[in-house]
Amino acid sequence: MKTDTGAIGVLGGVGPYAGLDLMRKIFDQTKANCDQDHLSVIQFSLSEHIIDRTRFLLGETDENPGEAIGEIMVRMANAGATVIGVPCNTAHSPRIMDQAVAMLHEAAPQVRFVHMIDSVIDFIRERLPQARTIGVLSTKGTYATGLYQDALGKAGFTALFPDDAGRERVQQAISNTSYGIKAQSNPVSPQARADLYAEAEKLVEQGAEAVILGCTEIPLALTEPDVRGVPLLDATNVLARALIVAFAPDRLKKDA
Amino acid sequence: MKTDTGAIGVLGGVGPYAGLDLMRKIFDQTKANCDQDHLSVIQFSLSEHIIDRTRFLLGETDENPGEAIGEIMVRMANAGATVIGVPCNTAHSPRIMDQAVAMLHEAAPQVRFVHMIDSVIDFIRERLPQARTIGVLSTKGTYATGLYQDALGKAGFTALFPDDAGRERVQQAISNTSYGIKAQSNPVSPQARADLYAEAEKLVEQGAEAVILGCTEIPLALTEPDVRGVPLLDATNVLARALIVAFAPDRLKKDA
Repeated sequence: MKTDTGAIGVLGGVGPYAGLDLMRKIFDQTKANCDQDHLSVIQFSLSEHIIDRTRFLLGETDENPGEAIGEIMVRMANAGATVIGVPCNTAHSPRIMDQAVAMLHEAAPQVRFVHMIDSVIDFIRERLPQARTIGVLSTKGTYATGLYQDALGKAGFTALFPDDAGRERVQQAISNTSYGIKAQSNPVSPQARADLYAEAEKLVEQGAEAVILGCTEIPLALTEPDVRGVPLLDATNVLARALIVAFAPDRLKKDA
Repeated sequence: MKTDTGAIGVLGGVGPYAGLDLMRKIFDQTKANCDQDHLSVIQFSLSEHIIDRTRFLLGETDENPGEAIGEIMVRMANAGATVIGVPCNTAHSPRIMDQAVAMLHEAAPQVRFVHMIDSVIDFIRERLPQARTIGVLSTKGTYATGLYQDALGKAGFTALFPDDAGRERVQQAISNTSYGIKAQSNPVSPQARADLYAEAEKLVEQGAEAVILGCTEIPLALTEPDVRGVPLLDATNVLARALIVAFAPDRLKKDA
């Protein structure tokens, strides 16, 4: 028996339930009829060591969470991960993720990092080539950093976000310590779900041709495939499929 | 930043969704209002390397899955796990788990293995001290090995199992490659759920004062707390709480 033959690495804990959600989606998207058909996946969920991403991006702390994320990616590489994904949009802001990925590449250049935002853009290009205006629901940190604005803009799309009040509502639906998804996700509170749904609807009314669920907590609340016929793009699901393609492409289930 | 300060280790993959279920229950049972409140958990889900436990116990193969489980526990210890749980009842059969735990203790004597079956017996003693007859739903492998019969007997309880046909029905609800939980768990098929519920009801009719869901796939199908007022004991949930007690007792949420 030799169990060390590579694995998909899930860097969890950002937040913990998003890590579970990605791992579940990897299993769900794998062709498998019994335990032994499933791919090797390891997850490190070390939430207590990774400072809040949005707080750093908004300048409320100088500690870059990218350092802990990089350290954990190196630990995962040492533990056998050969491709790694991080189910947190905000953490993909270049100021955070550039540092983390540099640490990984220096310590373990053979390990492949699968970038969630790039995977989402590739997905839109492939599946919705006619679309021009793409709505995004995200944390204020992701918004402030221009992550999706830049990535969508470079690919020729226009990014559409909720207004100030709407972005605050989305942020609270995610991180409010009483009703937010991070505090209460099993099940999600009715208020968090209602607020997110309402903001998605407004983006559709304003002309969005797809809405990116650009924070990995949001698909825990908005589980439907579309709002008024406009597709909701679950970045976690896109990342799950991209990780399988990077690790064992022949094991990817056909898309529904 | 120093992220290597111990973690709960979840040995997943037996099966993959049971590993997710244990990890989710650890998060659910932890006092937490934000990501950083959560405990460090690492999971290795290396299903393809762990041969079917029931097949080994029934003599259909000579390869002891305990060897792979032991090897993976050592890898988890090296990766930082300080307490380890395995969410698979069948794997706790002494012929399998004794070998695995011996490998762990030789390589990493400081790591604590939390035994799921012992945790369930402790739970019954504490919560249901008046009970005498305890029903058990399990795989045929767990039944054949006498795992729960022995553990319950030593503790002064009588174990009650479904009859031959019922045990076959339970086994199929778990592992049938078309409708079994291992093939189809999100959501579980109506047939798997109906068959498991019917067998739990029969045990209650025969006098069971509690029913142990003695295979970690079963709580994915039977999510209610009781059948006709008789409690269903989710061994995965009991293990989640025991792991928190072993790792950080002050972080355990009060029982509902």
